[in-house]
Amino acid sequence: MISVTILGAGNVATHLFKAFVKAEDVSIKQWFNRSIDAIRSYKNEVEIIDDLSQLKEADLYILAVSDDAISELSSKLPFENRLVVHTSGSASAYDIDKKHKRGVFYPLQTFSKAAKMDFANVPICIEAIDKPSYPLLKTIALSLGSPTKRINSDQRRVLHLAAVFVNNFTNQIYRIGHEITESEGAEFDILKPLILETAKKIQDMSPYKAQTGPAKRNDKKTIKKQLKSLENNTHHQDIYKLLTASIQKTHGRKKL
Amino acid sequence: MISVTILGAGNVATHLFKAFVKAEDVSIKQWFNRSIDAIRSYKNEVEIIDDLSQLKEADLYILAVSDDAISELSSKLPFENRLVVHTSGSASAYDIDKKHKRGVFYPLQTFSKAAKMDFANVPICIEAIDKPSYPLLKTIALSLGSPTKRINSDQRRVLHLAAVFVNNFTNQIYRIGHEITESEGAEFDILKPLILETAKKIQDMSPYKAQTGPAKRNDKKTIKKQLKSLENNTHHQDIYKLLTASIQKTHGRKKL
Repeated sequence: MISVTILGAGNVATHLFKAFVKAEDVSIKQWFNRSIDAIRSYKNEVEIIDDLSQLKEADLYILAVSDDAISELSSKLPFENRLVVHTSGSASAYDIDKKHKRGVFYPLQTFSKAAKMDFANVPICIEAIDKPSYPLLKTIALSLGSPTKRINSDQRRVLHLAAVFVNNFTNQIYRIGHEITESEGAEFDILKPLILETAKKIQDMSPYKAQTGPAKRNDKKTIKKQLKSLENNTHHQDIYKLLTASIQKTHGRKKL
Repeated sequence: MISVTILGAGNVATHLFKAFVKAEDVSIKQWFNRSIDAIRSYKNEVEIIDDLSQLKEADLYILAVSDDAISELSSKLPFENRLVVHTSGSASAYDIDKKHKRGVFYPLQTFSKAAKMDFANVPICIEAIDKPSYPLLKTIALSLGSPTKRINSDQRRVLHLAAVFVNNFTNQIYRIGHEITESEGAEFDILKPLILETAKKIQDMSPYKAQTGPAKRNDKKTIKKQLKSLENNTHHQDIYKLLTASIQKTHGRKKL
């Protein structure tokens, strides 16, 4: 049985806790958070602590904390030469104090507190500065049922950047769709099947091939009409122009 | 049994044909296309024609053609006072020649020739300039298993604009994610579960609530790092800046 201690109480920490509870080959040794209140509701399922001096020996310590907290928290850990990883897409593995065996255990997914997460849909990107620790990190990821990928820091940095595009920016595009429809008495709900199909389509087809619409067709009449209907919102208009130009750049059309 | 004739041979026409073949209450009278070759492979399933003078009487004629072709094709139809609709999100219902009973039958979904489409996931937006024709159009949409929504031209125009955002622009964001990962030796595939989850999340949660990430957190360090890593692609950098500013505008953060 592999023993794991979680540090932090955000969405990633909470989802990892819930997934480890169900994992067969992993037991959760302790759950640390500097404010015990955030994890008190789990006290019957795991030993919860808010004092680093109470940390017991474990095979792995997962720092699921904000990027800025990684360095300080790792240096305060009252032990050396044990395996310590963080879960960040953008922080360096070297942010972890060098007294530890270091690595990264980055779940490439969007977590919300409310929604359940099946870890079969959470690819875990693994980096092991301490190379002999890689098999253990992989075993732990597999025990969650997750696909795993060994990546280096450069690849992780790039994946995190791409994730900001396909997750945060895409979600903002949904938000603009919401604003546009609701402000004009149409219903956002009616767009939801289209949103889902757009995401499903590129599971088996490249986004290049999946593209359709007025920008790709260079349908100037529709583009002009739609830009005009956005004239009372220059911000939305700017986004329309830039993404239309982007599609036309990709598909070899002339600029607007 | 309601009889329907399809005119046109693009993705929408083809998917409507396949769905009507399976619908219990609808029979397809004829399928017209100006080039018979595009529909010849269906000749054993339906009467195919390329000559408008061969058109027989039907309860509904569906013009699934490009926006620019609607007006001329509808005026060339060798009959009057029958129900004729188009399937466009942006063309006016009044583009159809006024000698007909006019309407719109707009499937709000993205179709590709290859992919199968379950019409339960295709909301049909119905507009009837000839008001007594509305129940028939609704019955036909329901026979496909589709949710239906009665909308007017303004609402349709707005839905089509929002669809360009959540479908075409979102797909372009995926494309950029693809470019960023592949150009740096990471795999786009590993982002696919995140893309799907991002779309699933807003089925039950508003995009406003679903937002996460550096822009929303106003995590200046990460934003600065990511902008720097895009410095050899000013086009991607511009999109990053604009959408980051958009998120911060929505969530009340300061401008970049």
